[in-house]
Amino acid sequence: MKKVLLIISLLAYGWVFGQGNSKYVNPFIGTDRMGHTFPGATLPFGFVQLSPDTDTIPYNEGNTYNPLVYQYCAGYQYNDPTIVGFSHTHFNGTGHSDLGDFLLMPVSGEVKINPGIASQPRSGYRSRYDKNSEKAEAGYYRVYLTDYDINVELTATQRTGVHRYTFHRTDSCYLLLDMMHGIYNYDGKVVWSSLRVINDTLVVGYRQTNGWARDRFIYFAMTFSKPIQEYYLLNLDKETYTGFWRRWNMDHNFPERSGKKLKAIFNFDMRSGDQLVVKMGISGVSEQGALKNLLAEAVPFNFDEIRYQATQSWDAELDRVQIVASDEEKIVFYTALYHALLSPNIYQDIDAKYRGLDYEIHTAIGFTNYTVFSLWDTFRALHPFLLLYHPLQANDMILSMLAHANQSVHGMLPVWSHHANENWCMTGYHALSVIADAWVKGIRGFPPDEALKAMLQTATYKSYDGLDEYMQLGYVASETSSTSVSTTLEYAYDDWTLSQMALTIGKDSLAKIFKNRSLNYRNVFDYETGMMRPKKRNGHFVKPFDPLSTHNQGFIEGNAWTYSLFVPHDIEGLMQLMGGADKLEAYLDTLFTMVLPEKYYENTEDISKDGVMGNYIHGNEPGHHIPYLYNYTAHPWKTGLKVEKILKTFYRNSPSGLCGNDDCGQMSAWYIFSSLGFYPICPGSTEYALGKPAFKEINLRLENGSNIHIVTRNFHADKPYVQQVLLNGKPLSTPFIHHSDLKDGAQLEFIMGKSPKI
Amino acid sequence: MKKVLLIISLLAYGWVFGQGNSKYVNPFIGTDRMGHTFPGATLPFGFVQLSPDTDTIPYNEGNTYNPLVYQYCAGYQYNDPTIVGFSHTHFNGTGHSDLGDFLLMPVSGEVKINPGIASQPRSGYRSRYDKNSEKAEAGYYRVYLTDYDINVELTATQRTGVHRYTFHRTDSCYLLLDMMHGIYNYDGKVVWSSLRVINDTLVVGYRQTNGWARDRFIYFAMTFSKPIQEYYLLNLDKETYTGFWRRWNMDHNFPERSGKKLKAIFNFDMRSGDQLVVKMGISGVSEQGALKNLLAEAVPFNFDEIRYQATQSWDAELDRVQIVASDEEKIVFYTALYHALLSPNIYQDIDAKYRGLDYEIHTAIGFTNYTVFSLWDTFRALHPFLLLYHPLQANDMILSMLAHANQSVHGMLPVWSHHANENWCMTGYHALSVIADAWVKGIRGFPPDEALKAMLQTATYKSYDGLDEYMQLGYVASETSSTSVSTTLEYAYDDWTLSQMALTIGKDSLAKIFKNRSLNYRNVFDYETGMMRPKKRNGHFVKPFDPLSTHNQGFIEGNAWTYSLFVPHDIEGLMQLMGGADKLEAYLDTLFTMVLPEKYYENTEDISKDGVMGNYIHGNEPGHHIPYLYNYTAHPWKTGLKVEKILKTFYRNSPSGLCGNDDCGQMSAWYIFSSLGFYPICPGSTEYALGKPAFKEINLRLENGSNIHIVTRNFHADKPYVQQVLLNGKPLSTPFIHHSDLKDGAQLEFIMGKSPKI
Repeated sequence: MKKVLLIISLLAYGWVFGQGNSKYVNPFIGTDRMGHTFPGATLPFGFVQLSPDTDTIPYNEGNTYNPLVYQYCAGYQYNDPTIVGFSHTHFNGTGHSDLGDFLLMPVSGEVKINPGIASQPRSGYRSRYDKNSEKAEAGYYRVYLTDYDINVELTATQRTGVHRYTFHRTDSCYLLLDMMHGIYNYDGKVVWSSLRVINDTLVVGYRQTNGWARDRFIYFAMTFSKPIQEYYLLNLDKETYTGFWRRWNMDHNFPERSGKKLKAIFNFDMRSGDQLVVKMGISGVSEQGALKNLLAEAVPFNFDEIRYQATQSWDAELDRVQIVASDEEKIVFYTALYHALLSPNIYQDIDAKYRGLDYEIHTAIGFTNYTVFSLWDTFRALHPFLLLYHPLQANDMILSMLAHANQSVHGMLPVWSHHANENWCMTGYHALSVIADAWVKGIRGFPPDEALKAMLQTATYKSYDGLDEYMQLGYVASETSSTSVSTTLEYAYDDWTLSQMALTIGKDSLAKIFKNRSLNYRNVFDYETGMMRPKKRNGHFVKPFDPLSTHNQGFIEGNAWTYSLFVPHDIEGLMQLMGGADKLEAYLDTLFTMVLPEKYYENTEDISKDGVMGNYIHGNEPGHHIPYLYNYTAHPWKTGLKVEKILKTFYRNSPSGLCGNDDCGQMSAWYIFSSLGFYPICPGSTEYALGKPAFKEINLRLENGSNIHIVTRNFHADKPYVQQVLLNGKPLSTPFIHHSDLKDGAQLEFIMGKSPKI
Repeated sequence: MKKVLLIISLLAYGWVFGQGNSKYVNPFIGTDRMGHTFPGATLPFGFVQLSPDTDTIPYNEGNTYNPLVYQYCAGYQYNDPTIVGFSHTHFNGTGHSDLGDFLLMPVSGEVKINPGIASQPRSGYRSRYDKNSEKAEAGYYRVYLTDYDINVELTATQRTGVHRYTFHRTDSCYLLLDMMHGIYNYDGKVVWSSLRVINDTLVVGYRQTNGWARDRFIYFAMTFSKPIQEYYLLNLDKETYTGFWRRWNMDHNFPERSGKKLKAIFNFDMRSGDQLVVKMGISGVSEQGALKNLLAEAVPFNFDEIRYQATQSWDAELDRVQIVASDEEKIVFYTALYHALLSPNIYQDIDAKYRGLDYEIHTAIGFTNYTVFSLWDTFRALHPFLLLYHPLQANDMILSMLAHANQSVHGMLPVWSHHANENWCMTGYHALSVIADAWVKGIRGFPPDEALKAMLQTATYKSYDGLDEYMQLGYVASETSSTSVSTTLEYAYDDWTLSQMALTIGKDSLAKIFKNRSLNYRNVFDYETGMMRPKKRNGHFVKPFDPLSTHNQGFIEGNAWTYSLFVPHDIEGLMQLMGGADKLEAYLDTLFTMVLPEKYYENTEDISKDGVMGNYIHGNEPGHHIPYLYNYTAHPWKTGLKVEKILKTFYRNSPSGLCGNDDCGQMSAWYIFSSLGFYPICPGSTEYALGKPAFKEINLRLENGSNIHIVTRNFHADKPYVQQVLLNGKPLSTPFIHHSDLKDGAQLEFIMGKSPKI
């Protein structure tokens, strides 16, 4: 009966399932300035992200960091005048980076082998492009390269990038492959690379990089729709052992080359209007693996078929949520959903083989292996969202993390891992949160004892980031770490998640130990200032203390004002420290309205003025739960107001529409949850804090087929205050719901009113 | 009946099978100056060669070749005063080199991390040693390190090196692992390396080198008999990405490190007289592969058991030949047999996985995969010897070469290959000779059509070393190659071997084509000088022409005098060119007696004055068949005299007892054949040219259990001339026998006399 009503209701709004919400995706959102998103073609959780790179700022001479590098984490800045080429791997929204593998650039006329610089067109192989010609869709990208008179189109399968180049000049038509190109590149990052021309339509190769990932191997196999006429495999480096190689002309039509500085040029016989389709399968395992991926996914299909399949894949994902909203709102919403479904990425070949953290080739038996775990960001909302929206995949992500721990010489779960490497980025050990959250919310497709063992090993690995001291003193001392307070608070929270997991599987004494450890947040609370504050080994707090400053002040991506609220697992306890709920409310009111002088963020790479509300910085994650803390005070309705303001002002349909790094989907997942009207304020608990839905009506279809149907009654700008929330028709007595309320479908009604309901 | 007689005959000389001929092996033979042999521990065809390295002369600054490097092809020179350490891979007797992987050095007292130089003791971790303490046996080596007061013993399994160190000092006992050490080393040769301490008795790692082998990967797993107390994994290189690594103290007790310049130091708690046993398994596949090898081959056994097994393995090989000879002669003979059985090397893990030329991991199904094919050297006598002595292994070596061709982007058979790489060293495509030789001699364990296809592809690969021109003009022109004559002659011979193979499988037209190509030797014959001579593209011979000179004169490792005789497949035709058998005989007489001024070899690295007989240079292979050419003249007995002289004067029981590089056993195989009284003068034919046995009685047991029993009647210095040879009691009418005469056993009697029998 309920179901019937629902369908009628949906139809009433003109919804027809399957109409294709992918049309609302604007991949350019976030490509200007801070978002660090990429506009190219990819599939949900796809291994390939085939996307234009607009610059390749290298490190300075002497391999020192050049601050300009930062903005090219995704290889692309919207307002750049040139395109260097099209590479196959990109992170979505990170603040450090890597990848940019296997850059291809179609060329007509003279071929240059270095990219050149943007300010001097034709100084290299890069090309100016027609901004009006540029179009990006979920799974498709196109652009016109004016310097070469070539139309470029890109699409992708899971593991294959597919290019279609339409040539108009016919004199000299080339494809350039730059094995040196990379994101966050420095001289020496490409440790080794290799190319082999197997026949006139098949080329394979690999490269090994020492970047953010210390020991990364990536392989490709590439086919052409037309035969190569002639080719050059060039090595720009000196070859030390050449004794017997002199017998060959290695540069021209010689089918193999290895070295650190390889470039390849392939010549094709094209008539005006001819199209060259290039398909590049990639693999973390081997060239053979890349070839298998290519043969299975892309070779049987033409470009348009592959593009169609990509659209279908995105529609299947995005049509599971229907909203009643304006087109502009839909663009923002579905693009957020799109960004939230980009990573973690499938990291195994079509035959389930994958490279492990131990450098061995493994076979993923009984699960799909994933990589790209930006856990300091994503434990907050992205993983909880995937748990709700994609529980099977979320489960496999946990199995992937357990495989990682098994392969780790430390026995540790991932901190920030990608492509079979641990890069140890940021603080804490938030894999614990992700695993515990899944377990307490009923995910059962992974072995709890093995998981708990890996969690325990991770949380007790003495030489990791001040952990020995944390276990001895109950906090990380200021002398030990420049992020001592952040680290302490995050350890404490993660410890609590372990205790929750241990509790549910009957490991009571372990649960107790870690419950106690989770109270360590108290050790860095300073009653004098009412804030979390860096403490020295001798137990004295550090002086001087500027609660607005982040840099080297014991914090990371958040100052004392923000981090003092990072006790998601014991907000009652925190309020006691602060002096009660009223104090918390006052603190929040001040936080959101105070003036944060620009000096505190003007030189900070990852803070955009657009995302600042008082001292609340939405572009950085440590505050993401803060708007929902009003739910613990006497005035929960304030949550809705703050959330609404963030949703409406910090997320826009514009290339500069993200106020900070998307951080592998965390920013977008925050948007999705918040627009639905609830947020996982403390992963590891089953609780969601209620906010205020962004739309009049929302329907989210779960993987099990049931629906979460959210209706906002009296949806109107004049009625901004949540008066009451009904779950399946019954009024809720607190501003919280539980995962069990949602996982088999639910009807949530938010009743809005003109004035606050006290 | 024959068998019974044989046994009685053997017993009469006091032979008892299984008494252990390995005791006659002196691994030091060839370790001084030219031999380039190594004295360390290895098994027959073993993958590990665990041996002391006495110096690590690097390239000059700027990575230019330092001529001193040459003498360290096997890492060892007998008279050097210091030992750098003990590394696990070595070539036997090569003239270029590579390897030297995973050098270990036990240290007491202060640890230095660089090797230092020999002229300054204690300038690095290298140690002086007591020459009297040094002992080498087949499968065992020991030495006393005076600087550290440590006794070192080495032994090996197929894939595992086993070290036993007896410490006498107890203050600071360390083991140093130098990942940068290598043979033929230059700055940058180690492209990447990695170390991981799995637990206190297990360490794994790998390195990737760009040396003679362009893209080489080698892995290890190492166990200790005592736990590590503490350790240092050091990176001497700048680490560019260190952003988040600062959270760790990476140098001390941190279990993983990667980079290009790694060193590791492990500390052990030792009392005086305590022994530390270190077992290092290696693999071309993976660390896991190395660990499997270690676990299967070495972990269950103690040092003495492994040493015993190594001796048993060598006895099983060496006892198959029994000779009546003095101890000194036995030492020379069995050491030659030992050296002939060192390579090609098994190149697969215990589970049959191996790395292929295509960088993929393959499984050897139905064969054992081998590597180290120094074919320009070894097609002459080593492969023919293995075919006779080890037909099953010889067959698998051919299957390994076919796998190589299958994995080759060129589709070509190996030229000079090792460790999953082709290094393209030297001239010709002599894999054809090895395969054809096996086929015509009845080896049938490989697919002939596939083999012929690979041979044809190899012999028609246009861009290979002047081959296009050779196919067009019938010779390689002097403008094209500095070795144009050598190359032409070797192609012609190899072509003939292809024709022989084609003929026997009914590919008559192909056989005819290549039979015709094999006559190309005539195109570089100059009637004016009566010699092979470099020819220009326009058909004119090059002027001036110095038939004694090699360098850049169209030849390699042999001058025109030598190479003019390199037509093993058509000696009748060659004699016609030269003017008949008498002219050939006179040519040979002159060759062996003329004076070759020193200037023609004084600056040549690989020619030792010891190995020069007139203008015959035994240390270089192109002349190896020459002594046997007398068999085509009116005075075949001259062969016996020359052979005897070479056997007695160019092979001695002394570290300097080899007159040239052993060249992966070719020099030694020449010795074995020649001492047996016959030689494969033209591999690809079934013929052996008879010479003169070195001993009074020899028995060689074939793999099929039958015996070749060789008796020299009237064996006495006064009776140096072969009068008659009887095969199974029947006199032979020509100085040749065939493989079919030998392969199921034979009785060969050489009747000697006081004067030449004309």
